[in-house]
Amino acid sequence: MSAAASTGASTRVVLGPNQYGKAEVRLVKITRETDRHQIQDLNVTSQLHGDFEQAHVAGDNAHVVATDTQKNTVYALARDGVGTPEEFLLRLGRYFTGRFDWITGGRWSAEQYFWDRINDHDHAFSRNKSEVRTAVVGISETGATVVAGLQGLTVLKSTGSEFHGFPRDRYTTLQETTDRILATDVTARWRYRSTEVDFDAVYANVRSLLLKGFAETHSLALQQTMFQMGRLVLEAQPEIEEIRMSLPNKHHFAVDLQPFGLDNPNEVFFAADRPYGLIEAAIQREGSPANHKIWATMPGFC
Amino acid sequence: MSAAASTGASTRVVLGPNQYGKAEVRLVKITRETDRHQIQDLNVTSQLHGDFEQAHVAGDNAHVVATDTQKNTVYALARDGVGTPEEFLLRLGRYFTGRFDWITGGRWSAEQYFWDRINDHDHAFSRNKSEVRTAVVGISETGATVVAGLQGLTVLKSTGSEFHGFPRDRYTTLQETTDRILATDVTARWRYRSTEVDFDAVYANVRSLLLKGFAETHSLALQQTMFQMGRLVLEAQPEIEEIRMSLPNKHHFAVDLQPFGLDNPNEVFFAADRPYGLIEAAIQREGSPANHKIWATMPGFC
Amino acid sequence: MSAAASTGASTRVVLGPNQYGKAEVRLVKITRETDRHQIQDLNVTSQLHGDFEQAHVAGDNAHVVATDTQKNTVYALARDGVGTPEEFLLRLGRYFTGRFDWITGGRWSAEQYFWDRINDHDHAFSRNKSEVRTAVVGISETGATVVAGLQGLTVLKSTGSEFHGFPRDRYTTLQETTDRILATDVTARWRYRSTEVDFDAVYANVRSLLLKGFAETHSLALQQTMFQMGRLVLEAQPEIEEIRMSLPNKHHFAVDLQPFGLDNPNEVFFAADRPYGLIEAAIQREGSPANHKIWATMPGFC
Amino acid sequence: MSAAASTGASTRVVLGPNQYGKAEVRLVKITRETDRHQIQDLNVTSQLHGDFEQAHVAGDNAHVVATDTQKNTVYALARDGVGTPEEFLLRLGRYFTGRFDWITGGRWSAEQYFWDRINDHDHAFSRNKSEVRTAVVGISETGATVVAGLQGLTVLKSTGSEFHGFPRDRYTTLQETTDRILATDVTARWRYRSTEVDFDAVYANVRSLLLKGFAETHSLALQQTMFQMGRLVLEAQPEIEEIRMSLPNKHHFAVDLQPFGLDNPNEVFFAADRPYGLIEAAIQREGSPANHKIWATMPGFC
Repeated sequence: MSAAASTGASTRVVLGPNQYGKAEVRLVKITRETDRHQIQDLNVTSQLHGDFEQAHVAGDNAHVVATDTQKNTVYALARDGVGTPEEFLLRLGRYFTGRFDWITGGRWSAEQYFWDRINDHDHAFSRNKSEVRTAVVGISETGATVVAGLQGLTVLKSTGSEFHGFPRDRYTTLQETTDRILATDVTARWRYRSTEVDFDAVYANVRSLLLKGFAETHSLALQQTMFQMGRLVLEAQPEIEEIRMSLPNKHHFAVDLQPFGLDNPNEVFFAADRPYGLIEAAIQREGSPANHKIWATMPGFC
Repeated sequence: MSAAASTGASTRVVLGPNQYGKAEVRLVKITRETDRHQIQDLNVTSQLHGDFEQAHVAGDNAHVVATDTQKNTVYALARDGVGTPEEFLLRLGRYFTGRFDWITGGRWSAEQYFWDRINDHDHAFSRNKSEVRTAVVGISETGATVVAGLQGLTVLKSTGSEFHGFPRDRYTTLQETTDRILATDVTARWRYRSTEVDFDAVYANVRSLLLKGFAETHSLALQQTMFQMGRLVLEAQPEIEEIRMSLPNKHHFAVDLQPFGLDNPNEVFFAADRPYGLIEAAIQREGSPANHKIWATMPGFC
Repeated sequence: MSAAASTGASTRVVLGPNQYGKAEVRLVKITRETDRHQIQDLNVTSQLHGDFEQAHVAGDNAHVVATDTQKNTVYALARDGVGTPEEFLLRLGRYFTGRFDWITGGRWSAEQYFWDRINDHDHAFSRNKSEVRTAVVGISETGATVVAGLQGLTVLKSTGSEFHGFPRDRYTTLQETTDRILATDVTARWRYRSTEVDFDAVYANVRSLLLKGFAETHSLALQQTMFQMGRLVLEAQPEIEEIRMSLPNKHHFAVDLQPFGLDNPNEVFFAADRPYGLIEAAIQREGSPANHKIWATMPGFC
Repeated sequence: MSAAASTGASTRVVLGPNQYGKAEVRLVKITRETDRHQIQDLNVTSQLHGDFEQAHVAGDNAHVVATDTQKNTVYALARDGVGTPEEFLLRLGRYFTGRFDWITGGRWSAEQYFWDRINDHDHAFSRNKSEVRTAVVGISETGATVVAGLQGLTVLKSTGSEFHGFPRDRYTTLQETTDRILATDVTARWRYRSTEVDFDAVYANVRSLLLKGFAETHSLALQQTMFQMGRLVLEAQPEIEEIRMSLPNKHHFAVDLQPFGLDNPNEVFFAADRPYGLIEAAIQREGSPANHKIWATMPGFC
């Protein structure tokens, strides 16, 4: 009897959930229909789901659409134009699931980088790094799901943030405050109710509402600010079923200047790196099903 | 009637799954019982689950154990000794869930950094950066789950790797090969069947088996190598229910030296950055339940 | 006779050039004179030059102004207001060299991060990450030198860039082109002729001229574009003695779509990571002295 | 009269010091003379010095050996074998300066990554990430200079480190200590007295001496430890003219556990990220000329 069997563990080893593909295909598409060029800049990842068991257990690659082929497909489909990242990923996903019988679904994702024109120039651009747009398309037997998002949007309020009323126990030393800096890097992801959406327009509005929610909420906790940000989005955009955010609380500590004979009325701060608070939640419509499976693959989303 | 209601979307916005805590608490613990010091070096994250609705919807922090308190708790509990990362996280999790009624569970995780003695010195060490050990403890109403792991273990085979027999379609240009470099950064995570395990001993053996599986498998696909690595682990360690891996295929392309009048019998390679293949799977015991919820929170694990 | 002496090497070991200080002091200064707050966000490094020999050879710290003291000084001086980064570094440097007899000079540097108001809000901001402003002040027996700069300004032209006429030898395979993407991350540093400058105004104008020079130059080589960018700056700003740039040539390769039956008239590109071209030069006024010593400490500037 | 002329600044703009080349050419060389393979893993940068004025001022590329050609040369020369990084860079430099009349010198540099055999396997390896070896070769009209080095070697002493006797002024709050953690990431660069050296053997010995110097010095200041490390190297290796180090003081702060009713006899530490001390010096033989020009191009070396 094997060691495993003697403990009640099955001794037969099998393949569980799996996926594979090509990650971080860097695609820059220039549209040159007129002298006024357009630029689209994406980082695309393709991951396939399906029957790949023989590759794993026997090294038989008959079902393994090469990751190199997946990369080529990204570039070939881009030749006709990219459109929004969400539309491009839907095209990619539908191509693979339609082309190969054994591919039952997958996950396609992209980061989009923004560029601004330099002085309204026709073909000269500078990167706008203020945030990165993200998109994920999941396809399974039950259809396609689209999750849009953004990351790296760093925001700060220099007042209008309090934190008090929290429980105190043996290990609590934090003082209550009615005036602190509140700062975070917004990572947000929102799940659409369908695949037919004006993705660019909704993106622009969600971004605007997240900023507005952060700026205008008098904050009693980062949790409260986050919920308000999400509520604004859901109230304005019926296309969105739920929004999830992962918000680090980027601590700014007022420096104690008393040893130097100076006061510090919340003017001089040390911006700390680690540790940091981390606040994460889904904000959703009443009656939404719990935990759509597309979230399982996203870092930081519970 | 609101925009949302007119589309059939509920207009009532509610809080969904959520968690919060302190991330990346950098803890170095020196054990000085004798002149021969021991060092433990951890990066600890604490995230609480429970009833935090009022903080989100009303800014009422009565249930919000401050993330600063969570940080303090990490340092205070370390005073008694750390033990293995898994044991330390179990202590942390049990402290929080036992101390506060409304905290029903959480997720505690750590990275452990390794140090070697310099010339067998009593108190001088150098960092061994070859890999990072990881640990995650999840606690919910149904009990505690422990997932151990490692990341950043970079391995390469200079021969003994083939790739052929894959399907060819319109977008396939990759040539078949019977001799290529195979290289990857191993990220592996394994879920234990209980919380009573000799964590250090199993870690050391799993690490050794992953290396052995990589080195000794004549590879026909990275999928096959990965499955073999996992199979070795499950066959040797009955404590482990399943293991998941995320393996980038770090491409090394033989450089075409023909334009310079030189051959290149797989000796001179360009090590590419992006894109890269990405191969991910769970390898598990027959009859394992599908997708334990603890995986939902881990990046890259489908 | 020692091994060293037998080879003609002196056997006496002495201290050469040296400096020490506190690096990356993260300072956020909020000016709250009115309800309309101002924010300044700096990463400050202080390095002292002087007589520190006894600390090195004998562990005698009588001359070692602690790096912790240097950090405190950054925060204390910020209490009165920061002003431009250049002015703040001049204050810091003059404080240390004026306060301690044995400190004969030093190097003080900063990165400045930019913030925009959210919807013109009084105290809510979002980070503008499009570039980072840099400043360096060097003080020595001969006085103070100020070098301003910027880094991370990523720009791209989708046409208007050629590259041909380069020499061909045994190892040349690159094809000539009259139409390629030209992209780079601008790192620029300019040395002022005095310490009395309207630093903010000149910064804004230099940034604008660098963008203009990049956009408007029909490029025959990145070297030529760089020289034009620098020439514009020197012609417009008499306060500047020289400007140095370090420009990676971020290659964008047109993807060969012919295997898929598609043309590619410079529309679909692969944005490569490594290797990259790297073009660096000083552009200066005729008669400038060669290689001011302040450049010695800056990465990437020959 | 122009703005510049009115201030005494020359209005004629000229090209100053400049260089260009290909950066970060990732080269993996497998030596397969027997079944027991050898692996060499380098990241090579080539930068040329010479007469490139016409490229800058007129876009005339007749002297611009394409950076793509430089990349090709790296791979082509590797076909014959790489040898030590220093030897490989000398070959590269001599090729370019010998081949093209107008190339008078340059700077060639490399990072070398280490690999260990897995279980003494013939062709399976794991990356040893404990440090990276560096090499720089400079060639000018006066000949070739070789600087070897290492970076990323992280070391820590859990006791045997004091810091006291430093001056106190208005901004000093640091307490004196006779027992602290001392930790740093060693970056060291040493300049050879000739180009004929057993580079691998000296590298191994320098690495060993740096570790020994760090471990065995009872430290009164990081400056003193650094000087001792360098002295050991220079006393043992007559081939070396000088050694420079850049050592961050990676602060580990003992956590105050008194609020929790616990003592902390230097057992529980917070490992801080920023700010950090930064200690840099040249340690050299008596009579060494000041500041060899090769240092000008290296970050962090004054």
